[in-house]
Amino acid sequence: MGTTQLEPVPEPKYWHLRTVLSEALDSEFSVGEILPNERDLAARFGVARATLRQALEQLELEGRLQRRRGVGTTVAPPRVGVAVGTQRHTWPGTAGDAWQPVDCTLAAPPAPVAEALGTGRDEPVHTVRRSRVTHGQPVAAELLYIPQTSVPDLSAIDAPSGPARARAVLRELQRLELDHQDSAVELGSARADDARELDRLPGAPVLVVTTRYTAEGRTAALSTATYRADTCRLTFGDSGDVEIHHGPQTQAS
Amino acid sequence: MGTTQLEPVPEPKYWHLRTVLSEALDSEFSVGEILPNERDLAARFGVARATLRQALEQLELEGRLQRRRGVGTTVAPPRVGVAVGTQRHTWPGTAGDAWQPVDCTLAAPPAPVAEALGTGRDEPVHTVRRSRVTHGQPVAAELLYIPQTSVPDLSAIDAPSGPARARAVLRELQRLELDHQDSAVELGSARADDARELDRLPGAPVLVVTTRYTAEGRTAALSTATYRADTCRLTFGDSGDVEIHHGPQTQAS
Repeated sequence: MGTTQLEPVPEPKYWHLRTVLSEALDSEFSVGEILPNERDLAARFGVARATLRQALEQLELEGRLQRRRGVGTTVAPPRVGVAVGTQRHTWPGTAGDAWQPVDCTLAAPPAPVAEALGTGRDEPVHTVRRSRVTHGQPVAAELLYIPQTSVPDLSAIDAPSGPARARAVLRELQRLELDHQDSAVELGSARADDARELDRLPGAPVLVVTTRYTAEGRTAALSTATYRADTCRLTFGDSGDVEIHHGPQTQAS
Repeated sequence: MGTTQLEPVPEPKYWHLRTVLSEALDSEFSVGEILPNERDLAARFGVARATLRQALEQLELEGRLQRRRGVGTTVAPPRVGVAVGTQRHTWPGTAGDAWQPVDCTLAAPPAPVAEALGTGRDEPVHTVRRSRVTHGQPVAAELLYIPQTSVPDLSAIDAPSGPARARAVLRELQRLELDHQDSAVELGSARADDARELDRLPGAPVLVVTTRYTAEGRTAALSTATYRADTCRLTFGDSGDVEIHHGPQTQAS
């Protein structure tokens, strides 16, 4: 492996290195391939290890690289598009929903959630935990908060807990007529419980999607879903995915 | 300031510290306030500086803290909700559009964009650069790629460059009937040009929104918009923002 010295440029060195590395990934490496170790890479590009690490972190943010314990740094497969918003709004749990119910508890939610729901400070709400798996990989974890007033006819003799209870709560929720559905996406870090479910370390970057379901003029349910930012691209819209492919281009003749 | 020793817990130390710090931000600090320096904070919580830094990084990811050169670490104001998707699809540049045209060039786009547009490898396309400012702060930068076939009647004697040219191209684009509009959101890092416009360093975490506009069965335009991940929450849906407030709670009595 030869030495590729970087020419001096006005942009930060790690950023220039990121661009050079990105081109090398396109032309020299294939998905899943393990990169040379940091010392060899730093030597090849004539940069300090700290600069190299900064550039690798950039490429990890962009989903081009994955760093895995005991394996090293590998070339990441393209991110998976997961549909978040569609034209047709539906309650969680209806047919075609990609989420699997995991558990359901009745407990007071965190104070900011209670405030958003308009429930009292220590008032218990149904808290449904769901998970989403795409191509066999866990991609998202959700907490769905449903005030008791949204499911007034829920029977206590339905399943008392677990996925069966979750399904019973979601079934009751669907009796309401859904007026609006609003979502917001922001950057966050994985909570310990979500991290475990997503096979990440606590604090890993995640995309947090908050969705408010409105029925009869009030918030009938509130969802906070945590998507792995390294492997997911969230899609919104009519007809599916929008992707700009990296990697070696097919020849346009 | 007293010393608050952390009790041993099974979760990673930086993560536990993040939770403790987050509570301290809610109860002891107000927006814009400068945090004590790292040495004092590490001493107060009885942790190593490296652990403290990891916890601060988490809170920065979550938008709770901002680190600014020459100022230090401050408590961040709540993120600003910026509308990205609405029920009604419209071409860029129509009335009410929050984006300001900055420039317009005719040049071959990056290869992945050409592939997504279905244009030839070195075929020039109109590239409109736009920027978005909310509450006086730059929040997003966009490159909008428009194949020449989407604006066939564009006159060369219209403004040759700059914002006037951009407006002429967008006006022409609006003659087409918009069939679909699809978006995807993913985590990315700011390119050098975007970073400059967003007042960030290259490589800062950004939310990248890719939008494909479809007319007459083909991709009529493709946009890649880069939003500051530290200050923005992207909203999708019918009726506006969804926010779960941090900070001291109002008493629910």
